[in-house]
Amino acid sequence: MNRVKELFEIKYPIIQGGMLWCSGWELVSAVSNAGGLGLIGSASMYPDILDEHIIKCKKATDKPFGVNIALIYPQIDDHIEIIIKHKVKIVFSSAGNPAKYTSIFKEHGIKVVHVVPNLRFALKAVNAGVDAIVVEGFEAGGHNGIDEMTTMSLIPLVKKEINIPIIAAGGIASGDSILAAFALGAEGVQIGSLFAASKESSAHINFKNEIIKAKENDTILTLKELAPVRLLKNSFYQKIFDAYQNRVSTEDLKTLLGRARAKKGMFEGDLIEGELEIGQVSAQINKIKTVNEIMEELTEGFKRVKNNLNNFDF
Amino acid sequence: MNRVKELFEIKYPIIQGGMLWCSGWELVSAVSNAGGLGLIGSASMYPDILDEHIIKCKKATDKPFGVNIALIYPQIDDHIEIIIKHKVKIVFSSAGNPAKYTSIFKEHGIKVVHVVPNLRFALKAVNAGVDAIVVEGFEAGGHNGIDEMTTMSLIPLVKKEINIPIIAAGGIASGDSILAAFALGAEGVQIGSLFAASKESSAHINFKNEIIKAKENDTILTLKELAPVRLLKNSFYQKIFDAYQNRVSTEDLKTLLGRARAKKGMFEGDLIEGELEIGQVSAQINKIKTVNEIMEELTEGFKRVKNNLNNFDF
Repeated sequence: MNRVKELFEIKYPIIQGGMLWCSGWELVSAVSNAGGLGLIGSASMYPDILDEHIIKCKKATDKPFGVNIALIYPQIDDHIEIIIKHKVKIVFSSAGNPAKYTSIFKEHGIKVVHVVPNLRFALKAVNAGVDAIVVEGFEAGGHNGIDEMTTMSLIPLVKKEINIPIIAAGGIASGDSILAAFALGAEGVQIGSLFAASKESSAHINFKNEIIKAKENDTILTLKELAPVRLLKNSFYQKIFDAYQNRVSTEDLKTLLGRARAKKGMFEGDLIEGELEIGQVSAQINKIKTVNEIMEELTEGFKRVKNNLNNFDF
Repeated sequence: MNRVKELFEIKYPIIQGGMLWCSGWELVSAVSNAGGLGLIGSASMYPDILDEHIIKCKKATDKPFGVNIALIYPQIDDHIEIIIKHKVKIVFSSAGNPAKYTSIFKEHGIKVVHVVPNLRFALKAVNAGVDAIVVEGFEAGGHNGIDEMTTMSLIPLVKKEINIPIIAAGGIASGDSILAAFALGAEGVQIGSLFAASKESSAHINFKNEIIKAKENDTILTLKELAPVRLLKNSFYQKIFDAYQNRVSTEDLKTLLGRARAKKGMFEGDLIEGELEIGQVSAQINKIKTVNEIMEELTEGFKRVKNNLNNFDF
């Protein structure tokens, strides 16, 4: 039995993270059609764009898919209305307190999963009544907690205290790491970076090429005072670094960050001035692949390493 | 087949990290007697003390044990002479370049393992001719690399590029995490924090009590300009934090660190002024146990989670 598969009625307990600027209907429907769970990344969409992506996604797949919402999004109520209107069955919420919104979704029969970076928030999410949690380690790309607990240290800690299904995120880009996450206590995985660099991702090709070029230590978790984010150390990051060296105020950091940096980098392909959000596993990604290729490698890799472990002499 | 077990002629591929102020002959011989590999932590020992611990360790166990040496240790040549004199068969080296010393050990038939925090240094260690490497993630306690690659992100990356056995370190404190490390490509694990808090550890009881009280996010990797180290956020750390806030120079940081901080905290039990080096897994450690209890929990836990995975519906 696998509770993540049962909860979402999917073939493989592999969830594609709802990443801003990467996770439009093409990516989402491809993942769902391949047996995983695709999530539309609504945080980079105006309400009418989200509406459009849900409609297109429904046309492209008859399999379950979901929407990731950032609870701090300014037009969150519009997003929620659209999700309910279209009878989307699964919502992953992040970046905010799930206490207020979880009950609204549950009233409409929507499955709710909340993303947490530590045990403290995991317990809060359980109290809010979510169906499962994504536990995301320090190595994950994009917006993350201010804590630095890694996937390896965090999952067993959370597993000991809660009973609802755990979906591991951060550091996962292969069948090997899926099995590792399961050994730690997860029943599913959420994968971001690998899908951000997929053919079906709506990210700009320049950004995808940067992901496959990235080596170890090319990403960093920064901007902890504003909204902690793991990104590639490009020219824009160098400006952040210099700002820290010069001890600029949080206000000045905000000005430097400005608006639409992530769009500029990830969607428009400006590698100099844009913000390029990605995880540490980018060092393991060396080719742009289709979602089908990725899903096959993940599932075959999982089976292979599981068989190897059985032959292992401990 | 397990190459780590074969290399060291041990029953379980579990290595007790050679931690300063914790890893004297009592801990080392207890781990080796329980079927793992104990390592004397020589970095906190004057040559005559190391000599004494090796002699006592040999009396306390007829099983293989080793010595961890810090290659930047001022009297490293004396340490090496003592290791060779006593015909110690296994050396783990860290904190320095293995190129110079590996061949000296190999000439004396000593097995050499080097500790690395990234792929770059892993490749250098392979070139130096070591028999295996410890790959240590960001979550590990004590002295660590300046990189922030976590165990989950790093092991598969290294595994793809090298063929000698990999011993995973950082984030490992249970059978679950041992199996996770194996899934990622390791053939053995090095465990620190859990043994630092064991009954046989030579750490001060005050320090052990702090370890079992520690929660998530109570440790941090700091002092990157001097020698990066993960430690508990106690009063001494608060001074480091304040120093960073006040942008003191690296020289001033050195003065603040002073000498013998680790001894003061870990060996003398000064929780205010001392440096308390420990990993993120301290959040999972809630009791002081004997080495035998720890080894049994690890090996039984490993078998249990391995069986669970076999029943797992992917």
